[in-house]
Amino acid sequence: MMTGPTDPDDNPALDMASDNAAPSRRGFLRDGAALIGGAMLAGGLKGEASAAGADNLPPNIPEWMKAPGDPMGSQPYGTPSPFENGVVKNISKNLKQYISASGRSPLGDLDGIITPNGLFYERHHGGVPSIDPQQHRLMLHGLVDRPLIFTMEDIRRFPQESRIHFIECSGNPAYTKPYGKTASDVAGLLSCAEWTGVSLKLVLQEAGLRPEAKWIVAEGADAAALTRSIPIEKCLDDAMLVYSQNGERLRPQQGYPLRLLLPGFEGNMNVKWLRRLKAVTEPVYSREETSKYTDLMPDGTAREFTFYMEAKSIITRPSGGQKLKQQGFHEITGLAWSGHGKIKRVDVSVDDGNSWQQARLQEPVLTRALTRFRLPWRWDGQPAVIQSRAIDETDYVQPTFAELLAARGENSFYHNNAVQPWRIDAQGQVTNANA
Amino acid sequence: MMTGPTDPDDNPALDMASDNAAPSRRGFLRDGAALIGGAMLAGGLKGEASAAGADNLPPNIPEWMKAPGDPMGSQPYGTPSPFENGVVKNISKNLKQYISASGRSPLGDLDGIITPNGLFYERHHGGVPSIDPQQHRLMLHGLVDRPLIFTMEDIRRFPQESRIHFIECSGNPAYTKPYGKTASDVAGLLSCAEWTGVSLKLVLQEAGLRPEAKWIVAEGADAAALTRSIPIEKCLDDAMLVYSQNGERLRPQQGYPLRLLLPGFEGNMNVKWLRRLKAVTEPVYSREETSKYTDLMPDGTAREFTFYMEAKSIITRPSGGQKLKQQGFHEITGLAWSGHGKIKRVDVSVDDGNSWQQARLQEPVLTRALTRFRLPWRWDGQPAVIQSRAIDETDYVQPTFAELLAARGENSFYHNNAVQPWRIDAQGQVTNANA
Repeated sequence: MMTGPTDPDDNPALDMASDNAAPSRRGFLRDGAALIGGAMLAGGLKGEASAAGADNLPPNIPEWMKAPGDPMGSQPYGTPSPFENGVVKNISKNLKQYISASGRSPLGDLDGIITPNGLFYERHHGGVPSIDPQQHRLMLHGLVDRPLIFTMEDIRRFPQESRIHFIECSGNPAYTKPYGKTASDVAGLLSCAEWTGVSLKLVLQEAGLRPEAKWIVAEGADAAALTRSIPIEKCLDDAMLVYSQNGERLRPQQGYPLRLLLPGFEGNMNVKWLRRLKAVTEPVYSREETSKYTDLMPDGTAREFTFYMEAKSIITRPSGGQKLKQQGFHEITGLAWSGHGKIKRVDVSVDDGNSWQQARLQEPVLTRALTRFRLPWRWDGQPAVIQSRAIDETDYVQPTFAELLAARGENSFYHNNAVQPWRIDAQGQVTNANA
Repeated sequence: MMTGPTDPDDNPALDMASDNAAPSRRGFLRDGAALIGGAMLAGGLKGEASAAGADNLPPNIPEWMKAPGDPMGSQPYGTPSPFENGVVKNISKNLKQYISASGRSPLGDLDGIITPNGLFYERHHGGVPSIDPQQHRLMLHGLVDRPLIFTMEDIRRFPQESRIHFIECSGNPAYTKPYGKTASDVAGLLSCAEWTGVSLKLVLQEAGLRPEAKWIVAEGADAAALTRSIPIEKCLDDAMLVYSQNGERLRPQQGYPLRLLLPGFEGNMNVKWLRRLKAVTEPVYSREETSKYTDLMPDGTAREFTFYMEAKSIITRPSGGQKLKQQGFHEITGLAWSGHGKIKRVDVSVDDGNSWQQARLQEPVLTRALTRFRLPWRWDGQPAVIQSRAIDETDYVQPTFAELLAARGENSFYHNNAVQPWRIDAQGQVTNANA
């Protein structure tokens, strides 16, 4: 399925690729970019001057070089090119508003590991509140020496931290088949940003947390008053109260003006529009940790308080809905992540799981952050099934869906971190191999 | 000027702070957050129920909890909260449109190191072209075996890389006094993003770069046809052709659909709307590397081809235009960067340069990326002058403006990387100490 020798000295971008997967250095676009021929250029050169004094120019001077473009100030806050209008959140039309509304990041259209704020996934249970930050308060009470009410200005006076972390909904995707058509359908309730805020530990210390406090109950200021119980160990580890994402203040959909960030914990525990933290001895068994966000096991019991999102990965290119337009070189790339820490390795199979090759991980590989992986590949024009599996620093291996079924039975709904296979047909069309 | 013992075991956020600068762990908001008293709560509790079963609640249930918020889908591409409407690019009203138009990132309002795409700085010489990516072409010609014309689809077929780098205009700020009022006025022609694209080396290899090629001339598809000569060493090192910033496609203001990225080189060499690369033996001495972007030295010669942006830093909080509303704890934070590699150390002075303390650097510290630094500080209510100086991994030390004047004289315009002092008066008002 692959051709061409590896030539690491010539091709640094490929020198970490597995043994026989790398194309020769001059072969990426064998059927692609046009060689510049005399005929191609002949029509375009008349009367053209060049600032560089070049003797060749692209065939045509495009219209947008012939007059000044948009003036400065036309976008005090910038927006994407109109040609990218189709790249928006993938919003499920069948879900009921409010109770189960969600908008997925368009993973198949994104590069790198940072999700731009405009495309960060959203999931909320009572709509997006419009909160005046001057009026917003955070109350910290319960088992503390000095219960406190903070303004946003108070919160911003604490020492800051900034960290890059993913957040993933635990129903990403729901544990059913078929999963959907695209990478976004399957795993788009997942995004990653640089968050800035204050260590929750520091704020708890400010109030004098008492030793008998074992849980912190967090409540959001939305119409659902979304409430979750957080184990105190997490609150005293890497939990944060965050007010900025990717440099600017949180977007309303991500909890403006304040949210809890619990790196690696399931999405809804990262309570948005945070208004209250209460230190208690026992969890409160709120709706979102009893009726919802638990998994019904084969023996009829509920698997609850499943905090950490397990290691997972997905190929985003090529992925469902995309098309390979020609044989030859196509890089396979995707995202891997683990709630338990760093990604250690990602394996990719291009032969329906018969063999696996180690993908290259893009540096920096950060704890509880998305990690971009890449594998060079030559498509020979034959049907293929491609898939990836993540291994994290605890040596946990992302399971197949069959393995998940064997462990959890048919009735689970959340925490589906199964390997996602994509089928490529002879025309290059990519579809969900599970569908 | 500082009080309180350092207690690193209790306060991990401060354990890298210098000796006597850290406040006691319970003292951040000594005059801040309200203690919850019986009187405060009495009025607010009647008739309120709590999902968490709590016996205390913030004084008032805010309006935004009493009805569902905005429904899903109201923002397929998200925007900031209306309460953040004032956080926009800082656009100079006195500059002539097109020729010298610029919009600065609002550094004083930003956290972390990633600049959100909507607030990325912009500087252009012929307006922002509206380019159809289907029609855009990149021509690679000159001293290559196979001159090529690439479509955007061709470019995206190459193996990808993603890297976090800053870009800074070399006139940031112009080498004159007074510099301006705010951090954005002084250094806002500076932003940082995660860029995705292809190694320029790989593309040059695809075309068969000839050994006699010593420079690559890059030309943009804007009305200015902005043109710069790039030394071949950089082109074969870490130069990239990038099409994405922070996950999504480039914004029009940053070169949509394709720009050159030369990590650490002055901003305008990172040619936007890139349409042409020509391999040549000598630089072309274009307008932007002769008449502009050179420094007139005391002996009358022009300092030209000043590629690398030298190490620099600026305190962004507290900074010009901001106000300290009370005495006590205020973290000092800012940004440091160097075109030559990683930031090694940032020193901060809070006594007008008489003494310096080492700031804490936020991990990850990445090469040619913004680095966030922080220093805990207690303001005693007296006037103070605060400033920072960056040291990079080459051991270069950011100079004072006096040192810069001594070396370059009065006629320079670009490449001002001087230390920036801020004055804080007894009312807490922060102003530019150079103004």
